[in-house]
Amino acid sequence: MQSIVIIGAVALGPKAACRFKRLEPKSKVTMIDQSDLISYGGCGIPYFVSGDVSDPDQLQSTSFHMIRDRKFFMEAKDIEVLTDTRALSIDRKEKKVLVQHLPDGKEDTLSYDRLVLATGSRPKRLPVPGAMLEGVYTVSNLNEAVAIKKAVAGGTVERAVVIGAGAIGLEMAEALSDLWGIETSVVEVADQILPGIIGFNMARMGQHHLKEKGVSLFLREKVLGLKGERHVEKVVTDKRVLDADLVIMAVGVEPNSDLAGDAGLELTPEGAIVVNERMETSDPAIYAGGDCVALTDLITGKPAYFPSGSMANRQGRVIGTNLAGGDARFEGAVGTFVMKLFDISLASAGMSLKRAQQNGFNALSVFVVQFDRAHFYPDKDLVYLELVVEKGTGRVLGVQGLGSMEMGMFARVSAVAAILKDRPTTSDISNLELPYAPPFSSAMDVLNALGNTAENTLQGKNRVIDADRFVDWWLERDSGDTLFLDCRGWGNAQYFVEKYPEHWKSIPQDELRARMEEVPKDKRTVLICNTGVRSYEAQITLDQMGIRDTYNLQGGVAALKKWGLDL
Amino acid sequence: MQSIVIIGAVALGPKAACRFKRLEPKSKVTMIDQSDLISYGGCGIPYFVSGDVSDPDQLQSTSFHMIRDRKFFMEAKDIEVLTDTRALSIDRKEKKVLVQHLPDGKEDTLSYDRLVLATGSRPKRLPVPGAMLEGVYTVSNLNEAVAIKKAVAGGTVERAVVIGAGAIGLEMAEALSDLWGIETSVVEVADQILPGIIGFNMARMGQHHLKEKGVSLFLREKVLGLKGERHVEKVVTDKRVLDADLVIMAVGVEPNSDLAGDAGLELTPEGAIVVNERMETSDPAIYAGGDCVALTDLITGKPAYFPSGSMANRQGRVIGTNLAGGDARFEGAVGTFVMKLFDISLASAGMSLKRAQQNGFNALSVFVVQFDRAHFYPDKDLVYLELVVEKGTGRVLGVQGLGSMEMGMFARVSAVAAILKDRPTTSDISNLELPYAPPFSSAMDVLNALGNTAENTLQGKNRVIDADRFVDWWLERDSGDTLFLDCRGWGNAQYFVEKYPEHWKSIPQDELRARMEEVPKDKRTVLICNTGVRSYEAQITLDQMGIRDTYNLQGGVAALKKWGLDL
Repeated sequence: MQSIVIIGAVALGPKAACRFKRLEPKSKVTMIDQSDLISYGGCGIPYFVSGDVSDPDQLQSTSFHMIRDRKFFMEAKDIEVLTDTRALSIDRKEKKVLVQHLPDGKEDTLSYDRLVLATGSRPKRLPVPGAMLEGVYTVSNLNEAVAIKKAVAGGTVERAVVIGAGAIGLEMAEALSDLWGIETSVVEVADQILPGIIGFNMARMGQHHLKEKGVSLFLREKVLGLKGERHVEKVVTDKRVLDADLVIMAVGVEPNSDLAGDAGLELTPEGAIVVNERMETSDPAIYAGGDCVALTDLITGKPAYFPSGSMANRQGRVIGTNLAGGDARFEGAVGTFVMKLFDISLASAGMSLKRAQQNGFNALSVFVVQFDRAHFYPDKDLVYLELVVEKGTGRVLGVQGLGSMEMGMFARVSAVAAILKDRPTTSDISNLELPYAPPFSSAMDVLNALGNTAENTLQGKNRVIDADRFVDWWLERDSGDTLFLDCRGWGNAQYFVEKYPEHWKSIPQDELRARMEEVPKDKRTVLICNTGVRSYEAQITLDQMGIRDTYNLQGGVAALKKWGLDL
Repeated sequence: MQSIVIIGAVALGPKAACRFKRLEPKSKVTMIDQSDLISYGGCGIPYFVSGDVSDPDQLQSTSFHMIRDRKFFMEAKDIEVLTDTRALSIDRKEKKVLVQHLPDGKEDTLSYDRLVLATGSRPKRLPVPGAMLEGVYTVSNLNEAVAIKKAVAGGTVERAVVIGAGAIGLEMAEALSDLWGIETSVVEVADQILPGIIGFNMARMGQHHLKEKGVSLFLREKVLGLKGERHVEKVVTDKRVLDADLVIMAVGVEPNSDLAGDAGLELTPEGAIVVNERMETSDPAIYAGGDCVALTDLITGKPAYFPSGSMANRQGRVIGTNLAGGDARFEGAVGTFVMKLFDISLASAGMSLKRAQQNGFNALSVFVVQFDRAHFYPDKDLVYLELVVEKGTGRVLGVQGLGSMEMGMFARVSAVAAILKDRPTTSDISNLELPYAPPFSSAMDVLNALGNTAENTLQGKNRVIDADRFVDWWLERDSGDTLFLDCRGWGNAQYFVEKYPEHWKSIPQDELRARMEEVPKDKRTVLICNTGVRSYEAQITLDQMGIRDTYNLQGGVAALKKWGLDL
């Protein structure tokens, strides 16, 4: 018989509580939360705002449509929940938590044998004038989501500005513009969407899609302030002033660790609670998990911060097991990500090229475009994958993908995510064994092709450029430095050759051996096909003839199209 | 400068040839094949027969619509192909292959520095009378596929019988019945479809779907012979006679290793060519790969036979690299599988329960049903997953899945496939890190739930039965031995309680604590909910009260429905 107190009842708290109660049904669990809405799927908030999820109750319900409220936890789980109750302080010596019932201000003390901190994260707010005006929302909790939806459903919001192009910002931008038809702008201080998560090349494709969907995106812009009387009216950046009836401030989250810090528990310099693999804090009677803790980054081995509802749930189970005398472990995370962005999906596991380089890896990335299913199968989607690898060792540091809203891309990124902590090399990706049948995958699957391409590139057999370099050279084409050699059939090349006779030349790859003398030997040559496969073959043929100043455009015309380049 | 001869030009041969030529462009490659149709996607044959793929050329084309024929290999790849040419024998001492040009019978000798055997597999033919009648097809090559399609498109086929309910048999059954409306029967000697690949429980669900789609399935029936004048008219089994205008004999394949065996290369007792991780045969100048070789089963460590176009492609690359002086490895396979069966998909990685037990593992399996995406997200599909684990160690031996034709299930099986060779345990599945967002996955993903359930079951915390045991007990219900206790809300239970007042009782899980005295203490009790989650909770609550003769129906009513049980 133990007495367990859990602070926080959204994701990790309820999971730890329920797991523990299944293992030790006779012990007592008290869970407290400062809100009245508990145990909800916070990641579903953008879908509630968009209307895909019609009612906040749905986010708070089980899969069998029971609302996870106080009564549910009491009757179905034998767990007591104190809502509208805030934990004020922890007395670790006496093993007591001082709590306050918010509606009446009454204080009380809860004794514990073991305590669980599930205090989560809080959205950052930019320290700029006007940040607290009416109509400025962070996306912190379900109550706020209800307020946002009420505002947009009221019909008074014509223009919205989202500050921050991370996942939550972009999901909210989609929610506002897609269903509600609100003129939406996104302002981001970095030079790409999803900075720190996906690479520049892939981000550029997402940005083009945002544009296609009518969302205005302002990159490399800093918000200086928000203006309005009581209610926000304008967002002022260092480059422009945007009208706004509603502002979403989605500039990241930080761990809610004040209570832990005040109690003297060890925190990282960034303020996340330090835990071991058993999810114990520096006080073995206190566990913590979810968005308030630091985890081991399984790529670098260093502490890192991975806020995610999925992590929280899995850690909750580990804590529940350990509270009941078990020895479950949560070794850390490689960092995974997926999002819907209108009609496309973006995902990642591990590190982007930039993050790998920031972490001291001598890394490069390769990019492959291929159908998710057999190319002869009628239903199929192009999958765009980028693999980040360490030079020398060939170690795989991360993968990113872009695809349709079908799960073909998600499946490939998931398969890499599953092995990433075991330090795979490119040959593990080349040989990764996926189930194969034409309606699901290719005999040489896009994922295997990605590993092959990485190996070839690391070995210097495939000299590539990305679309960004292509654009640079294309814009300078009048200098005459670069020849653009189309390796596809004439039918594909004709339009470009006729439009740019000075710069664009057609030699189909299968004719290259016979027409070798047409290739200038003294000029930088960009080799182009639909996806980068035939241009790679052409490069090898040209190498053989001693023509080596050639660059294979990774992803080919498919990549240029996704970039939105209209040549 | 080497001279390479490759025997077989369908999957592995062309891959090895092209990879080698990219690495050693100046060396000479000669590829021979006894057919005139080469380098095609054999796995696409059922989709060509069904009409999803309209033309055989499509199976033989690159993704950029060039037909991979002799001319293509010569011009685009600088590889010589001798079609309609059969290899008669190998002189290993002189490093020569004796070949015959089939149209004119002329023989010739090809010298090699290194030889590659890509001779593939051949379909088995049952040794029964009538097996060679007209209208009896195996699905061995593209020419035969063209003949089958011609027959069905001619409109003279009203009834077809497929012998063998493996993947190819079922794919052909779908092709014949779905598009062509042919009355199709499948005869299988085993007691389930896909024997050796998926477990009984999952197979039963596939069988129900076949029935829904109008395919007649005769299990545990042995074909004794085929009857007809010149053309097949009837299939005679040990239980019935089936009319048939067309018969597909899909009773498995065997390695085409006669040439290798005659040359004295080492074969397994089953007749597959023995190769090492470099894909070298017992003669280091001869490589072999694809459907003619044995591979290491990475679960058991023993040699096994995994014919698959995907394996062949990846092995072809390994051979190409090694021919050029590299040191690439193919360490083996865990065995993966996926198929479309009308509106559903079935997949597996590693071993089914039965195969694990046949291989001496003390194994059990657990079964979980859950949505692939967040349960509050509007678009979602139920995913049915089975995990095969070793008792004691908790080692994961295999996974199987059933889902819709979206890729949610495929993604989960792929993620497990990726780690299976590294001997994961249930806790690796519990903690497997998939990218999470509501439109793609759940905070506690179905895969993580599968790991959790396996752990609980191994620890005796979740005592389960499958639908087959449920059926047994249900059919014996009048004995009064078993109570069927519905743990769902009254709305779900009402129909059953009113129909079976003697046997079916409703106590919603959240009311169980308060209504404990209504549960008989002296009776075997089956606990039922929609998917097995609430009934597991109920079991724990009853355990606590000392009522332990209870069994949680794995997969709940969702599993019963997929079985086609109409209670």
